[in-house]
Amino acid sequence: MMDRGRLEAFSDGVFAVAITLLALGLAVAGPGLGHGTLTHQLEQHWPGFVAYVISFFTIGIIWVNHHAFVSNIKVTSRPLMFLNLVLLMFVVLVPFATGTVADYLAHGGFDAQVAVAVYGGTLLGMSVGFGSMLEWSLGEGRMYVPVPRDQRWLARLRFTSGAVVYLVVIGIAFLSAPLALGITGAVAVYYVFERTPAIAKPDD
Amino acid sequence: MMDRGRLEAFSDGVFAVAITLLALGLAVAGPGLGHGTLTHQLEQHWPGFVAYVISFFTIGIIWVNHHAFVSNIKVTSRPLMFLNLVLLMFVVLVPFATGTVADYLAHGGFDAQVAVAVYGGTLLGMSVGFGSMLEWSLGEGRMYVPVPRDQRWLARLRFTSGAVVYLVVIGIAFLSAPLALGITGAVAVYYVFERTPAIAKPDD
Amino acid sequence: MMDRGRLEAFSDGVFAVAITLLALGLAVAGPGLGHGTLTHQLEQHWPGFVAYVISFFTIGIIWVNHHAFVSNIKVTSRPLMFLNLVLLMFVVLVPFATGTVADYLAHGGFDAQVAVAVYGGTLLGMSVGFGSMLEWSLGEGRMYVPVPRDQRWLARLRFTSGAVVYLVVIGIAFLSAPLALGITGAVAVYYVFERTPAIAKPDD
Amino acid sequence: MMDRGRLEAFSDGVFAVAITLLALGLAVAGPGLGHGTLTHQLEQHWPGFVAYVISFFTIGIIWVNHHAFVSNIKVTSRPLMFLNLVLLMFVVLVPFATGTVADYLAHGGFDAQVAVAVYGGTLLGMSVGFGSMLEWSLGEGRMYVPVPRDQRWLARLRFTSGAVVYLVVIGIAFLSAPLALGITGAVAVYYVFERTPAIAKPDD
Repeated sequence: MMDRGRLEAFSDGVFAVAITLLALGLAVAGPGLGHGTLTHQLEQHWPGFVAYVISFFTIGIIWVNHHAFVSNIKVTSRPLMFLNLVLLMFVVLVPFATGTVADYLAHGGFDAQVAVAVYGGTLLGMSVGFGSMLEWSLGEGRMYVPVPRDQRWLARLRFTSGAVVYLVVIGIAFLSAPLALGITGAVAVYYVFERTPAIAKPDD
Repeated sequence: MMDRGRLEAFSDGVFAVAITLLALGLAVAGPGLGHGTLTHQLEQHWPGFVAYVISFFTIGIIWVNHHAFVSNIKVTSRPLMFLNLVLLMFVVLVPFATGTVADYLAHGGFDAQVAVAVYGGTLLGMSVGFGSMLEWSLGEGRMYVPVPRDQRWLARLRFTSGAVVYLVVIGIAFLSAPLALGITGAVAVYYVFERTPAIAKPDD
Repeated sequence: MMDRGRLEAFSDGVFAVAITLLALGLAVAGPGLGHGTLTHQLEQHWPGFVAYVISFFTIGIIWVNHHAFVSNIKVTSRPLMFLNLVLLMFVVLVPFATGTVADYLAHGGFDAQVAVAVYGGTLLGMSVGFGSMLEWSLGEGRMYVPVPRDQRWLARLRFTSGAVVYLVVIGIAFLSAPLALGITGAVAVYYVFERTPAIAKPDD
Repeated sequence: MMDRGRLEAFSDGVFAVAITLLALGLAVAGPGLGHGTLTHQLEQHWPGFVAYVISFFTIGIIWVNHHAFVSNIKVTSRPLMFLNLVLLMFVVLVPFATGTVADYLAHGGFDAQVAVAVYGGTLLGMSVGFGSMLEWSLGEGRMYVPVPRDQRWLARLRFTSGAVVYLVVIGIAFLSAPLALGITGAVAVYYVFERTPAIAKPDD
């Protein structure tokens, strides 16, 4: 089995790079290129800053929960590593999805709706990726402190409910793109204050 | 509680990526695109190089102090992790703010002032983020070598004074953008030679 | 000799950054730049998404195998470090090659064929780089659990066959670029389910 | 004092990101943007590929030597950390300098000469940064296995000669840019095969 340390090191690297690349999408155009004054550009950029903060904390929360989860894993097998790659594949897409929202939200119309739907889809992918890691970990002998049998469905429910919210976000995006983006922000705020204890060791 | 190691690893990753992305803003346009000769472009780029050096050392200092701080932390709790995310959120904005200064300082006028004010605001955010981590650490039993009660206000003063300087920078930016940028450079030079001993362990 | 830890840390860093940069090539143009609607752009981008997923898992697999390999290495000498640099040099090229495929595949014609050939060539380079690390490790006393003498040619065959497939991909690219890209995807799927046990320790 | 582990982790992060960003400069323009066929663009890009390989191995060598150096350091003090930041500041500039060479070398003329001179200056900065770390380490009680007094000037000579070569490269750039670039490549090849034993522990 792979040692946990290197799984964490690689994942932390991907989380750290992805979270830092988020800010690339905020870049303004240089002067004299017909994009108006800097003040004007920064004003136009507000959806970019909102999306940046939401994405930053969403990735940050996933990172915090990922740590809690991995610290309780006993066996770091090959299947887990590939499920982890699936999770990371969606984490890596977040800067792209955030940049698309930043570019298209203020533009309005169908394009803004598609942009937020793509954003919701990316967060849904992260959610499903992380949920599948949880599902795997429920197997016999894979956690130091296993989730008690009678709490498994609760643990699943918590994860599934996150995925369901993002699914709803995709739908709402086509009614109101800003509202759908606001819901992803509310989810982030919720998870900052509400932890998911089931996956972590009691003393964690 | 989270182990310190992974908090450091993730933070180091973000610091390392952010500090390396600083140089992306220095890129010159290719030949034959109507931007003049390379020599001309490099001359026009001087504010970019100045901003690059200031940002590089400002992030470098924060990294050094972050290390000293974390090495003295006994309990790495969830609140600390989220305060750390707030700090990192502003660290990640530094390449964006630096690039904006690089593009607009030589341009002059109101845009140059806004650019330096945004830069000052980003550094202010880092300062407040780090200060809130200090404030948290002053709580009972959170540091290996706690700051003595009678030195706490001194420690707070040191941090607050940094934040106040950056607040002043934002104001001065609207009088003279180059002067305001120069002050951020002076702060960096000051911190290279003056350490903040209060937060570190005596043998650190 | 260098300690394994830092070889891994540096390699993991490069793998993590390269895998995250893959998504940079997916960026769409902003609204009002004459590139059509967002929906239209995303549709045009499908080769980019396909190439992204293939590259993500190809680098992911190399990373998993790299870990298994390094964990069995006893002596981390200077030659191995430079062979590792050769491997990483091609890993770092993957985002460039992926972006080129993303841009040119839908375009069709000779350019699409060249793009996929460059992509195949980059994967071939990774394969040869990793194969040369294996070859080096077959030397006396370099692995904790050495590959038995009678299985060495089998181990070589496994690695060589990967390289041969990528060589074939380069050739097929000039007959059918999409088919050639599909083969690289099939190779990734194959390696997700089929591990290369020879290089790892039995308990790995 | 700072623990060596985190100095290494941060430095490795910067090395890893900088070495991966090198490939960003290789990106070709998309089809239909008036830049000609992909084949034509790749042909035009040859200086970019040459510069990429030279820079990759130059950073790789510095990384290998940095490891050997740090593993022999007993006290990781604040001055060393800032000298290390100076070194990293130039490492981070390498992708910028490499991209400039890639863009301007084939263009020829004075711009090509300036580009290679900037490249040489960046490598000179790395060399001086690393040399100053060596100079610092020669102080009493700073290395596990100190450089014997009678070999110090030899150690200094080795480092100084590297800096002198890059100084010469800057001069030659104005006579022949390709020749000057070729010399930096020769230096990289030389250092791959010739190690600098003085700084490392005997068993390293």
